[in-house]
Amino acid sequence: MRHEAGVGIEAHNRYGACRWDGGIATHSDETVAEEVPVALVYNGISHAVMLATPLDLEDFALGFSLSECIVGRAGEIHDLEIVERDNGIEVHMQLSAERAHVLKQHRRTLAGRTGCGLCGSESLDQLAKRATTVRSSAVLNTGALPRALSALQEMQQLFELTGAVHAAAWCDFHGGIDLVREDVGRHNALDKLIGSLASQRKSFDSGFVLMTSRASYEIVQKAAAVGIAVVAAVSAPTGMAVRVAVDSGVTLIGFARGERHCVYSHPERVH
Amino acid sequence: MRHEAGVGIEAHNRYGACRWDGGIATHSDETVAEEVPVALVYNGISHAVMLATPLDLEDFALGFSLSECIVGRAGEIHDLEIVERDNGIEVHMQLSAERAHVLKQHRRTLAGRTGCGLCGSESLDQLAKRATTVRSSAVLNTGALPRALSALQEMQQLFELTGAVHAAAWCDFHGGIDLVREDVGRHNALDKLIGSLASQRKSFDSGFVLMTSRASYEIVQKAAAVGIAVVAAVSAPTGMAVRVAVDSGVTLIGFARGERHCVYSHPERVH
Repeated sequence: MRHEAGVGIEAHNRYGACRWDGGIATHSDETVAEEVPVALVYNGISHAVMLATPLDLEDFALGFSLSECIVGRAGEIHDLEIVERDNGIEVHMQLSAERAHVLKQHRRTLAGRTGCGLCGSESLDQLAKRATTVRSSAVLNTGALPRALSALQEMQQLFELTGAVHAAAWCDFHGGIDLVREDVGRHNALDKLIGSLASQRKSFDSGFVLMTSRASYEIVQKAAAVGIAVVAAVSAPTGMAVRVAVDSGVTLIGFARGERHCVYSHPERVH
Repeated sequence: MRHEAGVGIEAHNRYGACRWDGGIATHSDETVAEEVPVALVYNGISHAVMLATPLDLEDFALGFSLSECIVGRAGEIHDLEIVERDNGIEVHMQLSAERAHVLKQHRRTLAGRTGCGLCGSESLDQLAKRATTVRSSAVLNTGALPRALSALQEMQQLFELTGAVHAAAWCDFHGGIDLVREDVGRHNALDKLIGSLASQRKSFDSGFVLMTSRASYEIVQKAAAVGIAVVAAVSAPTGMAVRVAVDSGVTLIGFARGERHCVYSHPERVH
């Protein structure tokens, strides 16, 4: 299990528990996934707190910054430092002057409000409408999905230990898996994957995302924001996810299980 | 499928899709669960926007208000009105003067900030520490769990249609199910359950909650806030959920599957 350098907070811990089976109780030590408040701080100003698995936090911070359109490329974050506090973890990032200005203006429009739910939206009028459109000539051979699904099962290290986390995998179009990131939150897992791909300067056009979770709208929105053309999920999509996928040019695949899957948008990329 | 009176937004819709099985594609119409932005508005001020399944929104608004400690009892909400907008649904509530004052003071301390993630928390310092302790002499017979699990499978109407939503069930201590609420968000499903129980003036000490999801910390925190002593979940707990359960006097049960389950806190209530 890979732990973030310099962060002593564990991604999993053992808790004493009482295990019942057929009416008989035995004491057991259970391995449980930890969720830790992670504050994302830009140029000294705390922007958001996410509950996340304390692994791959540099990837997480970079991926969040890209998928939430706070920066347009990794190079606009000039410095990134992880600081452990008593009540969680802060990730401090220094933005370029231009990006810091844009973020400050954006924050000013929200001043005097508190937020909750949809990434800080407090009223319906604040809901972000994004005009991203993914243009990609990527083609997914339908045989790649069962291969990727099968390969992924062996690579979910934290899930194997805890049964509690989602995985986001980056797969090539033949079904090989390049990279896996895990988190208690599915969108955090995707942000970690996006951040890792960006830091390795991999093209978002070189493969597809496979999620072990449902496909909710923010998964599609984050993928579209960085130009990922194909998103596959093991479980169901929501209606908003389908509509965002249609509008943003993302091929959304749900219920990817064995040889079966269902393509909800832009099926022209699946052969 | 029960729909909220006066709300035309559907909890599920049909979308054209392309279903693949063993390399062969056929066109299909898929039933997909909808997630809709729901703004909770107190005394004219929008407090939070949650993505939710547009069913049982009165229950949702009342349950959220109780589990987030905005009110202490249902009677402190004097009026509740559901208004459909182009971009979502607003639930307008009128609070008692005293509660409105408390909420306004709480909001003032957050003024000038934007929020995201943990219910509007923007920095680690804002994370709510609650001192709720559930005192209950409730006893759960271990045989009640498999009975409730089995009964619940028949009662997840929207899941049956869409495969995409969580359920929260209110069970008596013999494993009978009194009430089920469903939502794309597990905490919304629980809020709907709590709101429905409160509007029926049922005692939160008369049974236990069964969730079809993982047990994350906010599930435990919401249960503790209204005095629910036993929370069982089909899937894994997180570490923070276990710690909140230990501190708040909640019996937390995870991996409830058939005759098996695991008790992570306050096992004295399980016999």
